[in-house]
Amino acid sequence: MPGQIYERGLDQNEANHVPLTPLHALDRCADLFPERIAIVHGEMRQTWAATRRRCRRLASALVRRGVKRGDTVSIIAPNTPALVETHFGVPLSGAVLNTINCRLDADGIRFILLHGECKVLFVDREFAALAADALENVPDRPLVIDIADLEAPPGASIGELDYEQLLGEGDPDFEGVWPADEWEAIALNYTSGTTSDPKGVVVSHRGVYLMSMLQLIDWSMPRGPVYLWTLPMFHANGWCFAWAVTAAGGTHVCLRKVNAPGIFRAIREHGVDHFCAAPIVLAALADAPACERSPLPRAVRVRTAGSPPPATVLKSVSELGFEVEHV
Amino acid sequence: MPGQIYERGLDQNEANHVPLTPLHALDRCADLFPERIAIVHGEMRQTWAATRRRCRRLASALVRRGVKRGDTVSIIAPNTPALVETHFGVPLSGAVLNTINCRLDADGIRFILLHGECKVLFVDREFAALAADALENVPDRPLVIDIADLEAPPGASIGELDYEQLLGEGDPDFEGVWPADEWEAIALNYTSGTTSDPKGVVVSHRGVYLMSMLQLIDWSMPRGPVYLWTLPMFHANGWCFAWAVTAAGGTHVCLRKVNAPGIFRAIREHGVDHFCAAPIVLAALADAPACERSPLPRAVRVRTAGSPPPATVLKSVSELGFEVEHV
Repeated sequence: MPGQIYERGLDQNEANHVPLTPLHALDRCADLFPERIAIVHGEMRQTWAATRRRCRRLASALVRRGVKRGDTVSIIAPNTPALVETHFGVPLSGAVLNTINCRLDADGIRFILLHGECKVLFVDREFAALAADALENVPDRPLVIDIADLEAPPGASIGELDYEQLLGEGDPDFEGVWPADEWEAIALNYTSGTTSDPKGVVVSHRGVYLMSMLQLIDWSMPRGPVYLWTLPMFHANGWCFAWAVTAAGGTHVCLRKVNAPGIFRAIREHGVDHFCAAPIVLAALADAPACERSPLPRAVRVRTAGSPPPATVLKSVSELGFEVEHV
Repeated sequence: MPGQIYERGLDQNEANHVPLTPLHALDRCADLFPERIAIVHGEMRQTWAATRRRCRRLASALVRRGVKRGDTVSIIAPNTPALVETHFGVPLSGAVLNTINCRLDADGIRFILLHGECKVLFVDREFAALAADALENVPDRPLVIDIADLEAPPGASIGELDYEQLLGEGDPDFEGVWPADEWEAIALNYTSGTTSDPKGVVVSHRGVYLMSMLQLIDWSMPRGPVYLWTLPMFHANGWCFAWAVTAAGGTHVCLRKVNAPGIFRAIREHGVDHFCAAPIVLAALADAPACERSPLPRAVRVRTAGSPPPATVLKSVSELGFEVEHV
């Protein structure tokens, strides 16, 4: 009875199916590659086992602090370990991650905090003054958490507590608040508001799972890539690579300041083989003085988007050994 | 109002979302790479534009012949163009594709035809006598279609009409009967029944879409692979590669008879760069006499599964230039 067979199959699938979400990738890395380096940042090296414990602590601490499923948790930070961790720890608390462009002015950030009804705000200390301005006239002040990044310049403390203190409140074995439905929101991103107020874009667990998979396929990403964070993670979650690199069992190499010496150093010291970059970053690589350049120890694959880089820039970086694709 | 934002997003997604299905891959290939070779078989070369027209004709003709959404359409054939085409044309008619292991005996095939309530049966002429046996004592005889494959040995005609005649009845611009729900069945596969009657496994459009994507990711499949059909397509839809190779914009190289000279010839003549094979096929490559071997013009990636091949076989084929992975 094929009708019955197919319907039985359908019911079972619907009853038992696991919602599509990028969060399983964290467990997969921690289970399969616990000692592999998940995050590199300056002198810091953090394994996948440690990263999962920290993400679980973060999720657990947020829940203990009263964060509910569907609450908005925002972060103002450059490409640092905390920004990688919040991509997993915040959704694991059931909350929705709102990464805020740290190049916006205080008014733009205030608009987002109000419009998105931010409940918790993480602030890298470089942006403490900016965030303090933005928080003025916000009637329901969110819980503010300072991030004292190791590589950050000095900055004021404006929060109720520090990121590491918050993690200390959490349970490293927390099971997490998983999506009951794959269409639940995982992230809330805003446009940069060039023409009017920023506009919010909500993406679902399902949506970013599929987009992450498509990024891996479209780039024929190898297993265990070493990915350099030049594209800002606050820009559409770094085109989903915050999750996709994890899904590929890779390593996130953070970079606070994107410039040619930093990129060449990361390639040389950390075995970087992939990064995404705006055309202007490619121009900086092409124009770098010889003393800043290092011969590339291997082919490095680069994706760029927006207006295509000039032919002279493409030629120059290709000669250096970068394999550039414009998407 | 984030709650409202997220719920609005959710409703819109649910109302408008496109069901996950591997069938879009055919349109993508035909739209983006109309002149690229989709299928190679002996002397035959068929583009993606032509392949889409033929798959649409097949779907349209089945619908005109009375096939309804959820009906079972079976096929007994080795790895030939018709088997690639039915992976798209049959689901595009709304029917469920049931590929039958052509190594089963007549009793095993009869069991499947009855249990799966086969409405239409495609039979490659090499297996006409076997199918005729299997059809005895089937009370509701399905519509039987002969496939006169160009490379097939002579065989009787047992059907009401021929595959090419059926395609002639169809509309090359047919829009198709698309799944309304991604959990609808796309294929019905049976175990080989080693220990008792074969057991049916129903897979959904969603399931094979995701599995196809994961195959591309796990193998870091490049764009436009040239894939040799050594693994039988009737075996779990060739581990989903019937759809995955299409999703990657690749070329299906058919092979009726899997042996070392045929594999070496396909690599040499068609630019094959990927195939899947049982360990015994690797052993045949390793043991091939020097006169049958050709130097590989490029690295050829091979996946194998089941019991791992012996180390001597792995060493031998690696020296020939095959990059073997056991999964």
